[in-house]
Amino acid sequence: MIEPEKDKVIDLETGRTISTGSFQESPEKILTEILIYMPTIGIADTTFARYDMGRAAIDEIQKNVSVKIIRVTVPGIKDLPVAAKKLIEEKGCDIVMALGMPGAKEQDKICAHEASQGIIMAQLMTNTHIIEVFVHENEGKDEKELAFLMDRRTREHALNVIKLLFKPEKLIREAGTGQRQGFEDAGSLRS
Amino acid sequence: MIEPEKDKVIDLETGRTISTGSFQESPEKILTEILIYMPTIGIADTTFARYDMGRAAIDEIQKNVSVKIIRVTVPGIKDLPVAAKKLIEEKGCDIVMALGMPGAKEQDKICAHEASQGIIMAQLMTNTHIIEVFVHENEGKDEKELAFLMDRRTREHALNVIKLLFKPEKLIREAGTGQRQGFEDAGSLRS
Amino acid sequence: MIEPEKDKVIDLETGRTISTGSFQESPEKILTEILIYMPTIGIADTTFARYDMGRAAIDEIQKNVSVKIIRVTVPGIKDLPVAAKKLIEEKGCDIVMALGMPGAKEQDKICAHEASQGIIMAQLMTNTHIIEVFVHENEGKDEKELAFLMDRRTREHALNVIKLLFKPEKLIREAGTGQRQGFEDAGSLRS
Amino acid sequence: MIEPEKDKVIDLETGRTISTGSFQESPEKILTEILIYMPTIGIADTTFARYDMGRAAIDEIQKNVSVKIIRVTVPGIKDLPVAAKKLIEEKGCDIVMALGMPGAKEQDKICAHEASQGIIMAQLMTNTHIIEVFVHENEGKDEKELAFLMDRRTREHALNVIKLLFKPEKLIREAGTGQRQGFEDAGSLRS
Amino acid sequence: MIEPEKDKVIDLETGRTISTGSFQESPEKILTEILIYMPTIGIADTTFARYDMGRAAIDEIQKNVSVKIIRVTVPGIKDLPVAAKKLIEEKGCDIVMALGMPGAKEQDKICAHEASQGIIMAQLMTNTHIIEVFVHENEGKDEKELAFLMDRRTREHALNVIKLLFKPEKLIREAGTGQRQGFEDAGSLRS
Repeated sequence: MIEPEKDKVIDLETGRTISTGSFQESPEKILTEILIYMPTIGIADTTFARYDMGRAAIDEIQKNVSVKIIRVTVPGIKDLPVAAKKLIEEKGCDIVMALGMPGAKEQDKICAHEASQGIIMAQLMTNTHIIEVFVHENEGKDEKELAFLMDRRTREHALNVIKLLFKPEKLIREAGTGQRQGFEDAGSLRS
Repeated sequence: MIEPEKDKVIDLETGRTISTGSFQESPEKILTEILIYMPTIGIADTTFARYDMGRAAIDEIQKNVSVKIIRVTVPGIKDLPVAAKKLIEEKGCDIVMALGMPGAKEQDKICAHEASQGIIMAQLMTNTHIIEVFVHENEGKDEKELAFLMDRRTREHALNVIKLLFKPEKLIREAGTGQRQGFEDAGSLRS
Repeated sequence: MIEPEKDKVIDLETGRTISTGSFQESPEKILTEILIYMPTIGIADTTFARYDMGRAAIDEIQKNVSVKIIRVTVPGIKDLPVAAKKLIEEKGCDIVMALGMPGAKEQDKICAHEASQGIIMAQLMTNTHIIEVFVHENEGKDEKELAFLMDRRTREHALNVIKLLFKPEKLIREAGTGQRQGFEDAGSLRS
Repeated sequence: MIEPEKDKVIDLETGRTISTGSFQESPEKILTEILIYMPTIGIADTTFARYDMGRAAIDEIQKNVSVKIIRVTVPGIKDLPVAAKKLIEEKGCDIVMALGMPGAKEQDKICAHEASQGIIMAQLMTNTHIIEVFVHENEGKDEKELAFLMDRRTREHALNVIKLLFKPEKLIREAGTGQRQGFEDAGSLRS
Repeated sequence: MIEPEKDKVIDLETGRTISTGSFQESPEKILTEILIYMPTIGIADTTFARYDMGRAAIDEIQKNVSVKIIRVTVPGIKDLPVAAKKLIEEKGCDIVMALGMPGAKEQDKICAHEASQGIIMAQLMTNTHIIEVFVHENEGKDEKELAFLMDRRTREHALNVIKLLFKPEKLIREAGTGQRQGFEDAGSLRS
């Protein structure tokens, strides 16, 4: 469980975390500043996927932090890049999760590749992280394991999103430790 | 059958659905506002395809909603990305359907990949959805099944276009339910 | 044989075909307006190709319409994307044909893929069609058939270019009819 | 061991190395100009990697030159392109190292390809070098060799980064000499 | 051997070759105009390559024309796209040669593909030709043949660069004649 620094918020202008000590002045002022500063996480998922990844992401985020969440659902993974970019540029999201389940066929692998390229391009065009969470339909040995994997990977990446927004220094501490999402961590190399 | 909210229209400036109650004031005012607000769907298809996907798309859209439709036809699928972008930027389309039938040869698969990458890039450059509807020539076991599939997938994606424009909340309700276009839906995972 | 509407020209500002009835007013006025309105077709080909595709394209265009033609030749197909973009942005071409013959080796296929991606990107950056005419060196069973194919495909795409410029409605009428360039048309599906 | 010219600094406006003789005038002036001129190297690495490449890079840089270093860690290699671009555009880095360990599976190879494309695009969008240091998980025969390789390649590329910033003429002298990072140099061809 | 028209120079504003008859007026004026008009060729190569392609390119150019040459060397081929773009945008190069030797391994082929895509993108972003000269390490049967091939292909493309800058009409005359760089020309098809 991540414990976000409750008395800190992101200054959307500068991207820096600022102290919110001043929030304790008066309830009205606090409310105003929270409305101004609360970061927004975008969630984009698909009707093609066979598990409600968007709901898992939102649930995990809300368990851990208070943020504004905006969700959109598109037909398939190739619709995710522009959906994520619109969440950033038209809805003001500070970070986006792009959730999808590429199918098991060869053609589906190519679609996933195209979607991933688009998601990277969307990030470069907006200078904003879009965390891609793709679970390939053939990653699970049966429907139950696949559902479990889609749930776990989504939730673990939701925690990464929170760290990127609120605790980037935590990620530095995890650098090179072989983190995996959905599967067991690989760990650091023994040398 | 989708039943669009007949008394709502999209505000093209904000992208929000606005009430059209005011449309009942006077016939002249209604006409003016309809001319201003009616969304435009672009249809781009090819002479290479062996089924008139553009006609199927237009038929399905017109059965369900009143919108302005602009159609262009280009030689092949690699001409679709710029055709779609021109529909958006030069003709004011709010969303575009890019319809094509990649051939069965290996080289045709590469063309489809290039076209798909271009369609994603066109969306990122315009912040506008372009719904790609590709049916590979070898997806049907014979000409009859292929024609059926091209018709069905086009029409089902036409309904997705309508939802994206008028009922995005319907798509959220379908998130993770394994929707397929042309084939039977895969459904949610049993877990 | 395409019969272009001789009394119509493209308004380069709007992209619309306008009546040229006014051209019959006085010779001086006609000359001026032709100079202003005559569309320009760019032709980019390569020294790598083993057939003069540029000449075939120019010959076919000039047989059918009066337009300004600007030709450039570059070493190989990977030089075509920027050559085409320069024709559009520096020479004012309204449409470009990018003509090339990818070699038969595996590495040549990758080059063709890179060139095609670049050609699509160049179109998206300019909102202008670039009709790619590639004939792979191994598409013909011998040199004679390859030369025939390079000539035919180039000429048939030259007619597509003319339709895109002057008769886009003709392409809509051909939508879904299985047109092929160089080979026999596949035709519409029997269903 | 590279011996950077200690009395030279980069003029960030022009990109040229300028003499710092004037730095010996007064302590206050020196401090000011160092604050203005000291180049910044960005380090972006991942929690997915199984060796702390970021620490190795920083250690090697600090052994050789005095520069400002800014580090970020992201979940995986596909998050590196935008992380590097943000380091350049939001943190003012003059050059960035993008450090990652693609996994051994086929899907991981595709991810690495997507990340590399994004890193090249990020460079083109910023006119700034991003030195990619990827060590594939299957490049080492065991964990020990892999760790060794990740350390070596990172450090040798850190020296390349220093040369690009301070001694570009050294790289020209090494042109065509078959330099390898992590492995033994291949050397010039014997002809 | 190309014989450049010694009494012509490129007007960098318009890209047109202009007569330099006026250069014979007075020595001072000539010097000034040469400084203004002399085109600049950028040379980007790598320390990874096992033959000094940059030196071969510069030698061949200087044998044939008087131009300004700016050279940079980067570690590997994936660093070439931004290096070439910087030569164009920061150093004012009118054309660039990007010289590299992709390795023989499968992973090296992917790197070459990424570099080529980046080089095409850099051209599209600058409207400037970047002539890619890649010799794959496994194109020669031994080190001697590989060195010969790297030298020949570089020099023959240097002549292409000169033609693109000074004699584009020569390239049109060679269109479709099956030119090859490094290997024997394939020639026109016999039909």
